[in-house]
Amino acid sequence: MAKVFDSKYRVNYNDSDYTGKLSLPKLGNYILDTAGLHATELGISMQTLAKNNMTWVMSGLHFEVFNLPTINSFVDIHTKISNCTKISSQRDFFITCNGEKIANVSSEWLIINTKTRRPVFLNEVFPDVFDLTSEDEISVEKYKHLRFVLDDDKYQSVNKIKYSDIDINKHLYSMRYLEMTFDLFDIDFFKSKKIKRMDVNFLSEVLYNQEVKIYKQQNENISQIEMRYEGKTMYRAEFETSEPTNTL
Amino acid sequence: MAKVFDSKYRVNYNDSDYTGKLSLPKLGNYILDTAGLHATELGISMQTLAKNNMTWVMSGLHFEVFNLPTINSFVDIHTKISNCTKISSQRDFFITCNGEKIANVSSEWLIINTKTRRPVFLNEVFPDVFDLTSEDEISVEKYKHLRFVLDDDKYQSVNKIKYSDIDINKHLYSMRYLEMTFDLFDIDFFKSKKIKRMDVNFLSEVLYNQEVKIYKQQNENISQIEMRYEGKTMYRAEFETSEPTNTL
Repeated sequence: MAKVFDSKYRVNYNDSDYTGKLSLPKLGNYILDTAGLHATELGISMQTLAKNNMTWVMSGLHFEVFNLPTINSFVDIHTKISNCTKISSQRDFFITCNGEKIANVSSEWLIINTKTRRPVFLNEVFPDVFDLTSEDEISVEKYKHLRFVLDDDKYQSVNKIKYSDIDINKHLYSMRYLEMTFDLFDIDFFKSKKIKRMDVNFLSEVLYNQEVKIYKQQNENISQIEMRYEGKTMYRAEFETSEPTNTL
Repeated sequence: MAKVFDSKYRVNYNDSDYTGKLSLPKLGNYILDTAGLHATELGISMQTLAKNNMTWVMSGLHFEVFNLPTINSFVDIHTKISNCTKISSQRDFFITCNGEKIANVSSEWLIINTKTRRPVFLNEVFPDVFDLTSEDEISVEKYKHLRFVLDDDKYQSVNKIKYSDIDINKHLYSMRYLEMTFDLFDIDFFKSKKIKRMDVNFLSEVLYNQEVKIYKQQNENISQIEMRYEGKTMYRAEFETSEPTNTL
């Protein structure tokens, strides 16, 4: 049982977007998978929680992006739990390719009861959870709490949540929020811009068959996205772009 | 340079659907990735073709499905080119998990010119392509040519093709057709039924920003799907279900 954990992924054909580079949502797939593998090793896996009608859910993400690799590159992910409170834990990821930095990512996690869909105290579920924290290395900055409310005229899209959008928790898969975010932009955007930083707030679970509305605002290099269901904000994201640099 | 090729995939967290089992479109990701790796070894890769404004596209798929594995299982894929004609090649996949059959899949491929989007003769591009065929093992049945035209009252969904739907060829990613197919069914369908067989016909490229209409017809255990763009049929699929058996 190690407080730090390493995993490796080959950028598969379908992990790239049309530009031939790994997309952020697909990098997010690796991150979530790695979190699952480490949690299993630590004895705090989703499978263990499921036996008691509980599950891990993500409440926020922060991406610091350097340079995304191309198809067939190998991506190394180093992860640790960097902080724990009574109700949430922060897990950090340091992602490299041939020793070059790809991205640093921090994520915040809660445990919810799958019957009530309400959070439970981490230390009541896993009394030793504070001992699993590794504070001896640098931590990634935590995600920003986004407060904006976008005007109704920023309304861009309506999405009904389908079979291919949901995960094993039967709610909208976290990386589909990101894909729905990027789907609001013309594809040329991803050739002419490079995402440097992204903050994501998952505020409320979006369930199967719900119809969400998505709002977008762009000011120079900052893009803000809000997702609402029946008028209630479920998700906010903000990202910052710059001109692209060379591919790895 | 081997006429047969083997690859291995771990079923990642996000490769399962909400039932916890590998989904057919995600199995399709592995298959396409494996085809790409073998083609690279044979010197007939997409990257080689791209230099001359050409690319591989898939014209059809046939799935014979036995039992789909759960998250963290290891999937072995054995592949070969089983047949070649002047304009198409058939590639077969034999997929197992711990020696148990998962699925047999056959796929048909064409080379198109990316400027004209028209097919070119395989043997003019790769003069030695017939020598790459391995006929010494069993082959998987070829996909059925589906001929049905569904009534207008079978219309189920309209999908505008977005950034997350397209692949490096800038057209609708083949496995997104399958996801859009399964998205027409209520999620309970995937608990109560098991897909035994599926035939897929990719008839015409669906491009970014195009708005397609999808039609569905179900008769007992047979489901038929048709996708149209401006009245023209772009895609047909048919699959057969049975009651589910045990998970691996």
